[in-house]
Amino acid sequence: MIENNHPVPKGYRFAATRAGIKASGKPDLALIVSEQTAQAAGVYTRNRIEAAPVTLTRDTLADGTCQAILMNAGNANACTGKAGMDDAVFCQRVASEALGLSPDQIAVNSTGIIGVPLPTSCFEKGIPQLIPGLKNGTPLDVATAIMTTDSFKKVASREVDLGEESVRVLGIAKGAGMIHPNMGTMLAFILTDATIPSAELQPLLKAEVDRSFNAISVDGDTSTNDTVLLLANGASGVPLSQKSSHWESFQKALSEVLSELALMIVRDGEGATKVATVEVEGAASDEDATRIACSIATSSLVKTAFFGQDPNWGRIIAAVGYSGAEVVEERVDIFFDEVRMVHQGLGEGADVEKEAAKVLRKEAFTVRINLNLGQGKARYYTSDLTYDYVKINAEYHT
Amino acid sequence: MIENNHPVPKGYRFAATRAGIKASGKPDLALIVSEQTAQAAGVYTRNRIEAAPVTLTRDTLADGTCQAILMNAGNANACTGKAGMDDAVFCQRVASEALGLSPDQIAVNSTGIIGVPLPTSCFEKGIPQLIPGLKNGTPLDVATAIMTTDSFKKVASREVDLGEESVRVLGIAKGAGMIHPNMGTMLAFILTDATIPSAELQPLLKAEVDRSFNAISVDGDTSTNDTVLLLANGASGVPLSQKSSHWESFQKALSEVLSELALMIVRDGEGATKVATVEVEGAASDEDATRIACSIATSSLVKTAFFGQDPNWGRIIAAVGYSGAEVVEERVDIFFDEVRMVHQGLGEGADVEKEAAKVLRKEAFTVRINLNLGQGKARYYTSDLTYDYVKINAEYHT
Repeated sequence: MIENNHPVPKGYRFAATRAGIKASGKPDLALIVSEQTAQAAGVYTRNRIEAAPVTLTRDTLADGTCQAILMNAGNANACTGKAGMDDAVFCQRVASEALGLSPDQIAVNSTGIIGVPLPTSCFEKGIPQLIPGLKNGTPLDVATAIMTTDSFKKVASREVDLGEESVRVLGIAKGAGMIHPNMGTMLAFILTDATIPSAELQPLLKAEVDRSFNAISVDGDTSTNDTVLLLANGASGVPLSQKSSHWESFQKALSEVLSELALMIVRDGEGATKVATVEVEGAASDEDATRIACSIATSSLVKTAFFGQDPNWGRIIAAVGYSGAEVVEERVDIFFDEVRMVHQGLGEGADVEKEAAKVLRKEAFTVRINLNLGQGKARYYTSDLTYDYVKINAEYHT
Repeated sequence: MIENNHPVPKGYRFAATRAGIKASGKPDLALIVSEQTAQAAGVYTRNRIEAAPVTLTRDTLADGTCQAILMNAGNANACTGKAGMDDAVFCQRVASEALGLSPDQIAVNSTGIIGVPLPTSCFEKGIPQLIPGLKNGTPLDVATAIMTTDSFKKVASREVDLGEESVRVLGIAKGAGMIHPNMGTMLAFILTDATIPSAELQPLLKAEVDRSFNAISVDGDTSTNDTVLLLANGASGVPLSQKSSHWESFQKALSEVLSELALMIVRDGEGATKVATVEVEGAASDEDATRIACSIATSSLVKTAFFGQDPNWGRIIAAVGYSGAEVVEERVDIFFDEVRMVHQGLGEGADVEKEAAKVLRKEAFTVRINLNLGQGKARYYTSDLTYDYVKINAEYHT
């Protein structure tokens, strides 16, 4: 699914190693370094219980610049108190010394188990080992090292052709559980070699995250560690801004990279066998459409029906009804792909139900709800709720 | 679990029959009749997609009186359009003729599959069959007839000793899936033979429902048909009001009946093997406490951890954090029964974890969270999320 020929933005280096943080002994520590200081933006978890590295990285990126990203899997350094913050600062300092960079140029990110002290000795030994690896390391190495319950590596990229010049956008992500707006246990690092003014970077990232990572749901749980970072190091020599004629092409590429990563996370949702796109249109407002899409995408009853390949539109319309959005029952239409299962609030009968059941046998399908009230629309991605979801989450940890 | 010696309020009659609405041929139509007009109050689903019988019953009870309750399982008469309302009115009229009562004295209630026309011929034939049964029918007959995915009958009652006199409170409920505040696919009918002023009945019921049925969660889905009715027919000859010295005793009995029924619904939660009480205290406000309790009680990750008997406090504190309530991480204490697993935001270590794991092996336990911020408190009841929940809901319907 993931191939090794992603266009890689210029001026970035990658490395990963086995530092002994994961009990499995698999790669668990990684580094992305830009050859020059990059403009940087970040979007972070809205969970009020925030892991130490999230707090530290937010502070570190406050000046809008960043040159290196350190990340580990196997331990989230969350709910670890003052010692956890000391440990995050320690890791940042070790990386700073190994790279010869100021600590405020280094973002640190952790994912894994909550409430267990970070094994700092692994970082002390592991970080210097990363440095020689920077020569030959690839984005796939980094993607591998940040996996937790992920079953595949998540990398997406685009090359944007701007006539005589070009820029590249690459994203590396992890996440399979605790996936819910806003975000989930997910990390994503987006790199571009375009030159973009710092002031434009943050609103750009926020808007694109809302359309991608904030519109996916696996299990409704928001983690303590979610982080999406965007670095623009300018190594392509191509300046871009909202006023550029090429801005739209660039934004489209960025949007595609984020959506591709978001969909990978849903597809890799713990135990998932299906990916459903929930499209809501004709709502009274975009906010209402989002409420409805979220309500359907997070309903355990809807998600088990998807697993059972059952076009149970009663559960879908019930989820529409309790979303809190404006609804007029007699106007609601529901489609499974192109099959209209409900028209003006009423089921279309057994024959249509059989057609709809065929749609649900596919690995990916769209459920479209038209409220026929206004212009509001929204899109969500969700997975089915399966035996394996229960298995994975009942057996994880202790 | 349910015994046949419930104190039954005076002046009520019960009957149930097999009307052919359930494909299984099991009892599916029932009637409760008061010998005299009762004061009546109702609390209904907040789902904007509301089943026809809910709308009709709300209208019927608008004058604060009711003498009979008709109910069926097997078909919810929801999402059935104008025809659905006609059908509900038809059933009300058939019952009215059979009982010799005005239609506006008859509440009608349905539960079962959504989106399928009500088989009115079953009612036309079945309702007259109920009348002779009223002589010998019991609350258990009614409780049996309204079961859908329920695995046991749900009846609770109390006799309130008021010195020389006494009054009785009896409740009959159904519900096992789509259980979530506010309510779920649940019906509950509460009967008392006390005389209570109509004006006091509605606020009383609302407050007690908030403390019981609105504080349980099985799967986070709110149904289109939820209804709780309270009838007070005065057959005991004992007048009660908020100013009565016995009011508190009566309210306590009512509260116990509702809580007992609510807990039965959680215990019968689809696929559930455990019942957890989530107690939140020390929150900044009662509203914050409720947000936190609901967030924990509905988290798929927390509920699968319960199933796995895993004292995974990281998922609990994450659910606290994303609830939206005020939280200071360093003040959070978490207990499993009497075992303090987290103190001031930090885990108490492996030995305590083993003790906590023992608590989770029980069928019922309490998770208590102290925010140490204020006086706010709330209580929720929830079940675990199991393979059987997925099985039941992936295989139900089509």
